[in-house]
Amino acid sequence: MIQKGLKGIVAAETFISHIDGENGKLFYRGYDIKEMAKNFSFEEAAYLLWFGHLPNPSQLAALKKDLKGNRELPDYVKGILHQLPRDMELMSVIRTAISAEGGNLDYGWKPSVAQAIRLTALVPTIIAYRKSQLDRKVFVSPRDDLDHVENYLYMLSGKVPTPAHLEALETYMILTLEHGMNASTFSARVTASTESELVSAITSAIGTMKGPLHGGAPLGVIELLDEIALVGDPEMVIRGKVLRGEKLMGFGHRVYKTHDPRAIALKAKLMDHIGVDEWLDLAMSVEDTAIRVLAELKPGRSLYTNVEYYAAAIMKAINMDAELFTPTFTASRMVGWTAHVLEQAENNTIYRPQSKYIGTFK
Amino acid sequence: MIQKGLKGIVAAETFISHIDGENGKLFYRGYDIKEMAKNFSFEEAAYLLWFGHLPNPSQLAALKKDLKGNRELPDYVKGILHQLPRDMELMSVIRTAISAEGGNLDYGWKPSVAQAIRLTALVPTIIAYRKSQLDRKVFVSPRDDLDHVENYLYMLSGKVPTPAHLEALETYMILTLEHGMNASTFSARVTASTESELVSAITSAIGTMKGPLHGGAPLGVIELLDEIALVGDPEMVIRGKVLRGEKLMGFGHRVYKTHDPRAIALKAKLMDHIGVDEWLDLAMSVEDTAIRVLAELKPGRSLYTNVEYYAAAIMKAINMDAELFTPTFTASRMVGWTAHVLEQAENNTIYRPQSKYIGTFK
Repeated sequence: MIQKGLKGIVAAETFISHIDGENGKLFYRGYDIKEMAKNFSFEEAAYLLWFGHLPNPSQLAALKKDLKGNRELPDYVKGILHQLPRDMELMSVIRTAISAEGGNLDYGWKPSVAQAIRLTALVPTIIAYRKSQLDRKVFVSPRDDLDHVENYLYMLSGKVPTPAHLEALETYMILTLEHGMNASTFSARVTASTESELVSAITSAIGTMKGPLHGGAPLGVIELLDEIALVGDPEMVIRGKVLRGEKLMGFGHRVYKTHDPRAIALKAKLMDHIGVDEWLDLAMSVEDTAIRVLAELKPGRSLYTNVEYYAAAIMKAINMDAELFTPTFTASRMVGWTAHVLEQAENNTIYRPQSKYIGTFK
Repeated sequence: MIQKGLKGIVAAETFISHIDGENGKLFYRGYDIKEMAKNFSFEEAAYLLWFGHLPNPSQLAALKKDLKGNRELPDYVKGILHQLPRDMELMSVIRTAISAEGGNLDYGWKPSVAQAIRLTALVPTIIAYRKSQLDRKVFVSPRDDLDHVENYLYMLSGKVPTPAHLEALETYMILTLEHGMNASTFSARVTASTESELVSAITSAIGTMKGPLHGGAPLGVIELLDEIALVGDPEMVIRGKVLRGEKLMGFGHRVYKTHDPRAIALKAKLMDHIGVDEWLDLAMSVEDTAIRVLAELKPGRSLYTNVEYYAAAIMKAINMDAELFTPTFTASRMVGWTAHVLEQAENNTIYRPQSKYIGTFK
């Protein structure tokens, strides 16, 4: 019997993360992500995923230095970004730029953490460089005194972000570094399993994440928040949508049957900054209304806020263009993808399932 | 329990091909590939895999016209080929060029046969264009009066190939168009399953095929034939290798427990051209010796010639550089990959298997 989409089939044993959908928990290397989001930086969480343990201060400093030292795009990759048609989708641009980076260094088997750091460091620069081209603005070069997430926002806007905006985006990125055997991570492991190099595996993952079924990009929630801000009456908008049978974006999750732990962790962080940003405030105030309406109109469905709900509010708050949502998700998920490829390489077996012929013979 | 590499797990039902390893048979859309190789052209076999039935004369003419009409690289893709470092591996160059082609047309969901034809038509041009760059020669533009395989050889060498060489390569390419749920085909289906576009799926497949575990590139056999040609005594070379416990390249196959039907079909075609090419003659004469020695020294192992054995002889005969072997395999497998993505799109379910956490909790 065939399990379509390999549903329920275990494709890999992993030390990297654990999703407990029934209890609404997510762990990175055994650490509850609520703790991760509260107490650690992007670099610390990335270190944990790559190395399997939290860094001591000198290890953390070394990682930050490595990330900073790998931000510059090779000149020929910049040249390629100039060659690509202006209307090419940004995810396709990133896929092509990362594939092109394969000609820069020796990425041959086996993959290394140094390679993972390099590719992770490059993605924000690719995004910001391309965006500056499209907007016909001067590219804002990375600044060595800024860490990974802060520098990303700086390159995009030319300004050092406020603490509220930086913390909001950094928490989002920490919480989306990794999420088990989703389609993009799986495709990275399949590609790596032939002993193809890390660049091939990550190129596959980017192309896979690009598909709209992959999810993670909070476009639908943005529209909801925009509508609520316009109408000014959250309850009326939400009640209307639910009564008309429309899906309420940002609520409910395929895996989490209760709270999405990433939404909880994001909200906890945003609570530190109440009154600072209207979009963050709006999202927090609308959530209570939405959950109350959903409990009333869809009793027993356990529809809680998911990570995309607060992600949308953060993207609005930091004024990030919609075309940058999936690329930003890509910038964080690079860490999970590369960690999985490193793990695959440690104990590799080529992925070679069966197909079942259901045609006739001539 | 986990099946490492998803061994034995059915990942898709398919109408495209069937491998019968026990009986040494391979079918494309229900047609025995021995018949395909004997009686049909590259274009007819590709049509069969894409459309599910053999073409009538006007359908065949239309496909040939479409392939010819899609051979030209967009100028910006040529520009990118000039930007990529000269020492970049050719498979990485092809992966990047195909990814870049994603900015040329609208490849959005769903994939179409027209897109499959376009990408299949482009690969030989990418290979020949890049090779001309590396060799610092003038690129030989495609010729509209030549069909797909003949034009590929023409672009590479600047000469119209002899009938023996054309038939040998065309037969090899027909026989390697498709081979079930191998790692590269599987990666293409996984990427497409998020509703990412055909270019993403094929970019994944190219990166996956690049890995040395994927196989298909007959480098080891080339070395064997070179050594035999040098020493002049096939039996001594082969007996020595087997007695020293070395693997005899070109014999035995993971799936085929008896004859590899592709080797049989290739040999049958080469028999039409005995006395025309020394390498083809050598391969045929060495095969008998090798099988006799293997039967004597490894009784009961059923080690027969595999497709790579005759592929190697063909590559020697047409004087193809070793770096072009896997790219040439890629040029044929494009048809199988794209056929699988089209099939995936017809009845899509996102690939989202499980992972099993085997670490501790902190």
